[in-house]
Amino acid sequence: MSYERDNIHALSAYAPGEQPESREVVKLNTNENPYPPPAGVLEAIAKVTGDMLRRYPPPLAPRFRQVAAMAHGLKPEQVIATNAGDELLRLVVTVFCRPQTESRGKGGLGYAEPSYSLYPVLGRIHDTQITTAALNDDFNLPDDLADRMNKAGCNLLLIVNPHAPSGRLSDLKSLESIARTFKGVIVIDEAYVDFAETSALPLLEAKMKLDNVLLLRTLSKGYSLAGLRFGYGLGHPDLIAALDKARDSYNTDIIAQTAAIAAIENREYAKNTWQKVKIERVRVSDELRRRGFTVYPSHANFILVAPPGSSDTGPSKAASLYETLKQQHVYVRYFNQDRLRDKLRITIGRPEENDTLLRVLDVVSMDGN
Amino acid sequence: MSYERDNIHALSAYAPGEQPESREVVKLNTNENPYPPPAGVLEAIAKVTGDMLRRYPPPLAPRFRQVAAMAHGLKPEQVIATNAGDELLRLVVTVFCRPQTESRGKGGLGYAEPSYSLYPVLGRIHDTQITTAALNDDFNLPDDLADRMNKAGCNLLLIVNPHAPSGRLSDLKSLESIARTFKGVIVIDEAYVDFAETSALPLLEAKMKLDNVLLLRTLSKGYSLAGLRFGYGLGHPDLIAALDKARDSYNTDIIAQTAAIAAIENREYAKNTWQKVKIERVRVSDELRRRGFTVYPSHANFILVAPPGSSDTGPSKAASLYETLKQQHVYVRYFNQDRLRDKLRITIGRPEENDTLLRVLDVVSMDGN
Repeated sequence: MSYERDNIHALSAYAPGEQPESREVVKLNTNENPYPPPAGVLEAIAKVTGDMLRRYPPPLAPRFRQVAAMAHGLKPEQVIATNAGDELLRLVVTVFCRPQTESRGKGGLGYAEPSYSLYPVLGRIHDTQITTAALNDDFNLPDDLADRMNKAGCNLLLIVNPHAPSGRLSDLKSLESIARTFKGVIVIDEAYVDFAETSALPLLEAKMKLDNVLLLRTLSKGYSLAGLRFGYGLGHPDLIAALDKARDSYNTDIIAQTAAIAAIENREYAKNTWQKVKIERVRVSDELRRRGFTVYPSHANFILVAPPGSSDTGPSKAASLYETLKQQHVYVRYFNQDRLRDKLRITIGRPEENDTLLRVLDVVSMDGN
Repeated sequence: MSYERDNIHALSAYAPGEQPESREVVKLNTNENPYPPPAGVLEAIAKVTGDMLRRYPPPLAPRFRQVAAMAHGLKPEQVIATNAGDELLRLVVTVFCRPQTESRGKGGLGYAEPSYSLYPVLGRIHDTQITTAALNDDFNLPDDLADRMNKAGCNLLLIVNPHAPSGRLSDLKSLESIARTFKGVIVIDEAYVDFAETSALPLLEAKMKLDNVLLLRTLSKGYSLAGLRFGYGLGHPDLIAALDKARDSYNTDIIAQTAAIAAIENREYAKNTWQKVKIERVRVSDELRRRGFTVYPSHANFILVAPPGSSDTGPSKAASLYETLKQQHVYVRYFNQDRLRDKLRITIGRPEENDTLLRVLDVVSMDGN
């Protein structure tokens, strides 16, 4: 007998990318920053005392909120600290979406497809109505996105920007237009924004008079801290206050709070790693295009590519190339889903890791793969 | 305009105990272990590398599950690691309780009152039906608890044992009987079990044939790691698998996993602190009884006491004593709720902290308070 609710029983859980134990692997599959976190983070962690661990952490992470607010030119009450971006995504679904039978189609979750594959999982756990809209062929947002989401009764719209898994960046004007038209809360998931040139931060300025915009940030990618699980949300104080009510009481631990403060304070170091990744993004994209790959223009720390001669129908060249690369200890990401079956998502690594990828591709292409 | 759901809008968030910044304070209000965590934990944290932080943590915390399973004589698939006990409590509500209008009174949450004040908050966030049963005068569980929860259609029953805030311990026989009668999942919240003589662990033995029992454990109290946010659940593999589906994808970070493993491996050190707390619990209880306090028998690291001459009606002696102690930099916990208004919950500290409490009590009683 099962005790869990039917929606949980029927659920396929989110499948994270592979995390091979071996350090010998070239790991270009889960969008980690290839450079280590700033030394200041490790120093801050080393200073954690037994007495700090013994006591409950400050539940609201006030020092982190202050440091993050300063960094972004906002007020602390516009910041919420979370157990990575994933907690913020769960919180917005919990707080702004209605469970399905309760809602009769009202108050659901909307997003464009394809997108971060966690979004539908969170919607199903909450058992809320899910509405999707197909992205244009170039992975741009459809012009009528907000109207369609309004018609479907959505109260929450998730937009990952730069887009995953394509790396495409929507401009501020489009995002502003969606925010003004959409009647619910719009979350701009900026997990990869550190590798782009622009952010949606200006939408939070008081003169914009937008009370329904929330930005998601994470230290996982830009700050090389995927292992730490620390993210934050930026938005109108009323949105932040509502999310604060639904947080686990002490959602971020004292070590993570301490390390996150050090990461933001050492932002110049992180910026240097973003610059290095961007330079490599251009180089790897060019090299793959020279080898006949289709490469989508990316503003993130990964690129979406289609191998030469691959097509959306018939046996997937991308899937077999993924397997071949894995046998050669080079991990990239393959998504067995519509519009992605003929493509691979490749994280930008250090120059020598990217060289290994290119070398292995040359060898396997000579083998006739 | 508010965007959040009505149940969130109406919600009073969980109010954690005060966390004064000053280290000068005698802090007996949030049930922390007064002794530092084992040195092995700090050593494990100091060994965390930049590369560990840069990468995603193992999503299932497999090494921790193995170490915890070994410690309790269970299999790893009977263990789930969580971001403190609070995450496990949120998960069981998410997974086993139905939202209210969907449920027509079926699939709700039940617990006995008074109890951990987070339980109703979690039920309200999830908007599930909440059924409560009053504890007996001595804070024991009523005999017909399971029957009443069955009649109310509850699918989840939360029992904190040792009980908070009284410290009372239910015996294994009573818990087994409830588990056999109750038709949903019973969570025995053993947050304070390290300070008791018995645990409900035998209910998980295969020969018991109970598939609906889940135990909650935390490192916050027994292992002096409230700042770390690490807890775990123990139960039938099917229950654990259902909870795993609803977890945030990487719910525990790499530092916490590493530190938690070290804590369990250094259990002998922790046991020594439990022994010291138990000895002080007897001493402080005796000293307070000598001063005319009513002291409830406790199996936890705190005691519930009623000041001499206090009563449930009229102006609360307990509330004014709480304020007086706070002015003297001694923090204890006061709950302004039924059956607790005339009482204080006092965490057992180190001998010198407890002496300060007793000395201050003597001074304020001479002042006629």
